[in-house]
Amino acid sequence: MNLVANFGPGRPRVEQRRRRGQTPRAEILDAAGELFTTNGYANTSTRVVADAVGIRQASLYHHFAAKDDILDALLVETIAAPLELAERLRDVREPTPARLYALAWFDVRQLCAARWNLGALYLLPELRTERFAAFRLRRDELRGHYETLAAAVLAEAGGAGIVGAAALPFRLVEMVINMRSDEGSAPVFAERTIPEAALRVLGWPGDLDALRGRAQLLLAQLEPA
Amino acid sequence: MNLVANFGPGRPRVEQRRRRGQTPRAEILDAAGELFTTNGYANTSTRVVADAVGIRQASLYHHFAAKDDILDALLVETIAAPLELAERLRDVREPTPARLYALAWFDVRQLCAARWNLGALYLLPELRTERFAAFRLRRDELRGHYETLAAAVLAEAGGAGIVGAAALPFRLVEMVINMRSDEGSAPVFAERTIPEAALRVLGWPGDLDALRGRAQLLLAQLEPA
Repeated sequence: MNLVANFGPGRPRVEQRRRRGQTPRAEILDAAGELFTTNGYANTSTRVVADAVGIRQASLYHHFAAKDDILDALLVETIAAPLELAERLRDVREPTPARLYALAWFDVRQLCAARWNLGALYLLPELRTERFAAFRLRRDELRGHYETLAAAVLAEAGGAGIVGAAALPFRLVEMVINMRSDEGSAPVFAERTIPEAALRVLGWPGDLDALRGRAQLLLAQLEPA
Repeated sequence: MNLVANFGPGRPRVEQRRRRGQTPRAEILDAAGELFTTNGYANTSTRVVADAVGIRQASLYHHFAAKDDILDALLVETIAAPLELAERLRDVREPTPARLYALAWFDVRQLCAARWNLGALYLLPELRTERFAAFRLRRDELRGHYETLAAAVLAEAGGAGIVGAAALPFRLVEMVINMRSDEGSAPVFAERTIPEAALRVLGWPGDLDALRGRAQLLLAQLEPA
């Protein structure tokens, strides 16, 4: 039985809301996030996404011209906030270890809190096509922020770190994607374990509890809405 | 132009070999490994795999009854050798840090050396179905070996490690999958960086160069063929 009564873009829908989200666009993204991560991207048509939202396919196309536009929007969601925070942290006078801790903490938290484990989509072969070049560039930008902070911590630690360790903090944060994929959710301690591990692999020898307190103050001040 | 002249299972093929591999089974796995990681699992039919090998689809079915059997065989390839090494390491009298270093080193090396980045398939939603329960169990077994070794190192380090860090070494090793996916290949220093990071996040304070020497001797003795 189809109770959907949709009169096209802009018209109010009379059926009950099927998805989370304040706007039709958010509802489409929520449905697609679930379907892409549970049934697979290639296995999910825009028709199936529209059905899951309870709108016509034509209405979906009003918001997204093609399926890869939905994927792109979902991917951008996974990095937009940490990228904004990284830019704010760059411009603040605060010791580098606290800035790196704050970025890793915030990023782990948002990757864990997201309703769908969208980071699992990073490994899709589709992402290596030209269509996603802009997304890859933005993700590389975020990676660059991590590596710049990490290299500075490594330099301060005076060579006590591991060769090549500047690449590790970004990758440590993305571990929660694999944890969610394998275990259903990342362990609650990940928010603490991962930022701490990021500092220790760089050879930073300081007090981690004090650093966490400092990172918390930074986040209270700079965290994106 | 189709030069394939295949007369069914068991008969010699007259056309030139198109794939790497000593046996038809290995050739099928090589072709599927490439197609699954570059075009996607859902986007690849057994017909396309057979074409890439230069055999008929019927001949492919002689070796693999269905596409998911090919995927399962590829996945098992990614963990079989490290699992074998982990079992051998369990039964040897040698300090735990050297055993953990040896396992991580060997595993990073084999994940980097594999022709296709098959670990990228771990995040496929298909893997969470019943069909892959046996594979998931074997991978959990490998994870268990890492966590047992890591917990022992953590205990020896006397609480200098990070809470929850026992989960990190296994995940650190799998980082090379994401590195290969993003950067085409993992950095050459990963073979050293990742085992060293695995020890440091556990709070192990010893000399990493000496440990590497010890792990090398262990591998010379125990490494699976």
